[in-house]
Amino acid sequence: MSKKREARARLAPGFRDIASGQVAARNAMIETLCGVYARYGFERLETPAIEYVDVLGKNLPESDEPAGGVFALQDDDDQWISLRYDLTAPLARVFAQNAQNLPRPYRRYQTGPVWRREKPGPGRFREFYQCDFDTVGTSAPAADAEVCAVLCDGLEALGIGAGQYQVRVNNRKILDGVLEVAGIEQQDGTRLTVLRAIDKLERLGMDGVRDLLTGGRKDKSGDFTKGAGLEGAAVDRIIAYMNTAGATRGAVCDALDALVGESEAGRTGVAELREIDALLGAMDYAEDRVIFDPSVVRGLAYYTGPVFEAVLTADIRDAKGRKRDIGSVAGGGRYDDLVTRFTGQQVPATGASIGVDRLLTALELLGADKGAPAGPVVVTVMDRDRLVDYQRLANSIRAAGITAELYLGTSGFRAQMKYADRRRSPVVVIQGSDEFEAGTVTLKDMQLGAKLSSEIDDRDEWRKGQPAQCTVPEDQMLGEIRRMLGLEDT
Amino acid sequence: MSKKREARARLAPGFRDIASGQVAARNAMIETLCGVYARYGFERLETPAIEYVDVLGKNLPESDEPAGGVFALQDDDDQWISLRYDLTAPLARVFAQNAQNLPRPYRRYQTGPVWRREKPGPGRFREFYQCDFDTVGTSAPAADAEVCAVLCDGLEALGIGAGQYQVRVNNRKILDGVLEVAGIEQQDGTRLTVLRAIDKLERLGMDGVRDLLTGGRKDKSGDFTKGAGLEGAAVDRIIAYMNTAGATRGAVCDALDALVGESEAGRTGVAELREIDALLGAMDYAEDRVIFDPSVVRGLAYYTGPVFEAVLTADIRDAKGRKRDIGSVAGGGRYDDLVTRFTGQQVPATGASIGVDRLLTALELLGADKGAPAGPVVVTVMDRDRLVDYQRLANSIRAAGITAELYLGTSGFRAQMKYADRRRSPVVVIQGSDEFEAGTVTLKDMQLGAKLSSEIDDRDEWRKGQPAQCTVPEDQMLGEIRRMLGLEDT
Repeated sequence: MSKKREARARLAPGFRDIASGQVAARNAMIETLCGVYARYGFERLETPAIEYVDVLGKNLPESDEPAGGVFALQDDDDQWISLRYDLTAPLARVFAQNAQNLPRPYRRYQTGPVWRREKPGPGRFREFYQCDFDTVGTSAPAADAEVCAVLCDGLEALGIGAGQYQVRVNNRKILDGVLEVAGIEQQDGTRLTVLRAIDKLERLGMDGVRDLLTGGRKDKSGDFTKGAGLEGAAVDRIIAYMNTAGATRGAVCDALDALVGESEAGRTGVAELREIDALLGAMDYAEDRVIFDPSVVRGLAYYTGPVFEAVLTADIRDAKGRKRDIGSVAGGGRYDDLVTRFTGQQVPATGASIGVDRLLTALELLGADKGAPAGPVVVTVMDRDRLVDYQRLANSIRAAGITAELYLGTSGFRAQMKYADRRRSPVVVIQGSDEFEAGTVTLKDMQLGAKLSSEIDDRDEWRKGQPAQCTVPEDQMLGEIRRMLGLEDT
Repeated sequence: MSKKREARARLAPGFRDIASGQVAARNAMIETLCGVYARYGFERLETPAIEYVDVLGKNLPESDEPAGGVFALQDDDDQWISLRYDLTAPLARVFAQNAQNLPRPYRRYQTGPVWRREKPGPGRFREFYQCDFDTVGTSAPAADAEVCAVLCDGLEALGIGAGQYQVRVNNRKILDGVLEVAGIEQQDGTRLTVLRAIDKLERLGMDGVRDLLTGGRKDKSGDFTKGAGLEGAAVDRIIAYMNTAGATRGAVCDALDALVGESEAGRTGVAELREIDALLGAMDYAEDRVIFDPSVVRGLAYYTGPVFEAVLTADIRDAKGRKRDIGSVAGGGRYDDLVTRFTGQQVPATGASIGVDRLLTALELLGADKGAPAGPVVVTVMDRDRLVDYQRLANSIRAAGITAELYLGTSGFRAQMKYADRRRSPVVVIQGSDEFEAGTVTLKDMQLGAKLSSEIDDRDEWRKGQPAQCTVPEDQMLGEIRRMLGLEDT
């Protein structure tokens, strides 16, 4: 019977389906990270996908209509609601709403999808996962040091060893101090131009930044960007700041002390870094894991103190051997305006977010990912009248803790083998009438079978030692399947 | 510094925050269920939160505008998109879109939140979790039998034993057969009235249904609902059908055979149940777990064959000892129009959904839930200059795999103890200057302390045997914490 078609099966742009193996890999990663967060005393929180637009801070000025970038709609009472854009705005709402009942400091972690209404592109999705942890209500640099430790522990728990990654720390207050000493005032119009220039270091390199700090820069297409118009000493001081490096975190602090001079903001910033250094040292996080790097900027308007990013330093190459630059896999910092929108008060907060999707890609390329898992043992149906017997076989395999399924289609043997192949089945169970009468089953080792087909040379050798197919008495089936799966027989 | 308030911190109506313990309990439940699904060869799928409205089948007739009940908005190209309403419509889209590349039959499971734009009320949320499994592309009753087995295994994996639950099975085709024999045609107008009456069994009881099958029914408020106007034999047959019961599934089938007479639909339905019975028997799912129950209806328009529901039969009472009727905790059935909307073709499918939220409530009441987990060990700060030492202590506890945190606030000792209490901390670590000089730490057993305060009588006794507080050399700290936490010392 054919009915009327009403819709075309298609995904909305920027959205994707995620297959079994990938979901498993992502969930395992998230659970590992959350385990680390929890060990540090962070408490799990889950907030809804939908919040009021003004609560998310995504409303137009003087209005509660959405400013764009979010998936918003009007609720039945005409108020604007929206899918969350990140996990930080909901944290702010929770803290402002429940401040009286929450422990203070409040450590929370949260993981889940967020949605951004942006132009989709290849590899750019409008729904993706975040995995955040934050400490709210303390300005102690100990909380910032802890963020670094959690990032290290998190990456190492995923199998990324010391030496394969680096947590880089900076402090916005030091940059403020350097600008102050360079004669650029907080509210100065050129300040924003300077900050924008510094933020472009990774993309343009130091020469490009220098152009933007001085006269201006012409890009490859010929477009000209006006510079900040700084001169001599000021430019040198900013460039020197960005180039600051040292053998130890303490040495970096010493160099920075010289650059911030008498600026109070700058001196506070360096003092905070020294405290972070001491705490990290006490926990045995040395320079092979956490460094101080004044070139780390991470967004300019938002953060108010220490900023963090984690980068993979391992040599990561794609299937074709080309070097892949994964960039930063985690980032964060201190921000003091978390709940200002709600309470009018400043509440200090610090935290970071690990980029699950990017990290998954990296782990795949690093080979830490195990690849798609094997599918179920498939019990084929040779004689439809004996379905009950086949289901009993499948059930006895499952009862041993092994994933197994009965073939439920109506096709013949050849199609069933094709099905087993498509399911990545490691072992196929066959019981035709001969086997049934003899009380035996035939087991086909699919992985070995595939290997045999590809390695014709060694074929005879393999056949002698480990046959890809064997017939055993029914009561030896489980043991033989366990052998084929490489499980120890118990 | 006080800035301008711009928003009021509040949740959108029908949405909620979920605290740490509850998220953990829900995730553990979902992982347990998914583990069972996977053991049967179901593959995990994840689809996006957002789909086209017409793909979800939630569009108005002859339009792609949303019909209501969903959170929908227009994308940048003016097409209507919406948050998913269930996990079945996305499965249909995936199957229609990828039929060529999917194994057939296609077994998939999916879990995640769904969103319904309904009037919120107490305990009625607009965002909640589903946990579905379905087999697409086979009409074999073996697939339906498997659904029953998965439901049993799932509930038992959660600690709900045989005897505490019941999976109830019916077959829509048998009802069709009974109606046919009673002289009610497929397209007859009274058929819908009859179906609606049957669907009200649970709410109105058998007498109420009888009224609705015959002349009509006046409810308590005096409102009159017109009946189907059936007479004598037809009514008796339908009532007899709904009352069918038997000591075994086979006996129920025998009774149903008599009721469906020569109706082909009816005979097919009973034959399917007999096959399901045989397969369940082969897998040792007896009548203590799965029964055939013709009073199970589960929605009338949707299902086309076997229908399933799982109910908890255990005596469940709330904190005040009042009996709580949890109702069904899972439901499903066979439906053949899964992809008709997309392809115009019928594809047979069967599956079920376990109601995670309702089941969590039930487990809490059954006491299978362990209650809120203990919080972290809290290392207090007695001397702010020795933060580094305190962080080192916290880190050594974490390194032993025990959740621990350094107090990061600025308050004094009393407030720190209050904080530890609020965090449900099991053990507090204290190191004042005396302890520091002596190389010791003081550990406070918070659970025992709370017990002591509430059991004044035994106080002296407790004090002698298990002190709530003790001071030990630093190198014995871990052993003592493990003892207080009830962990075996290794």
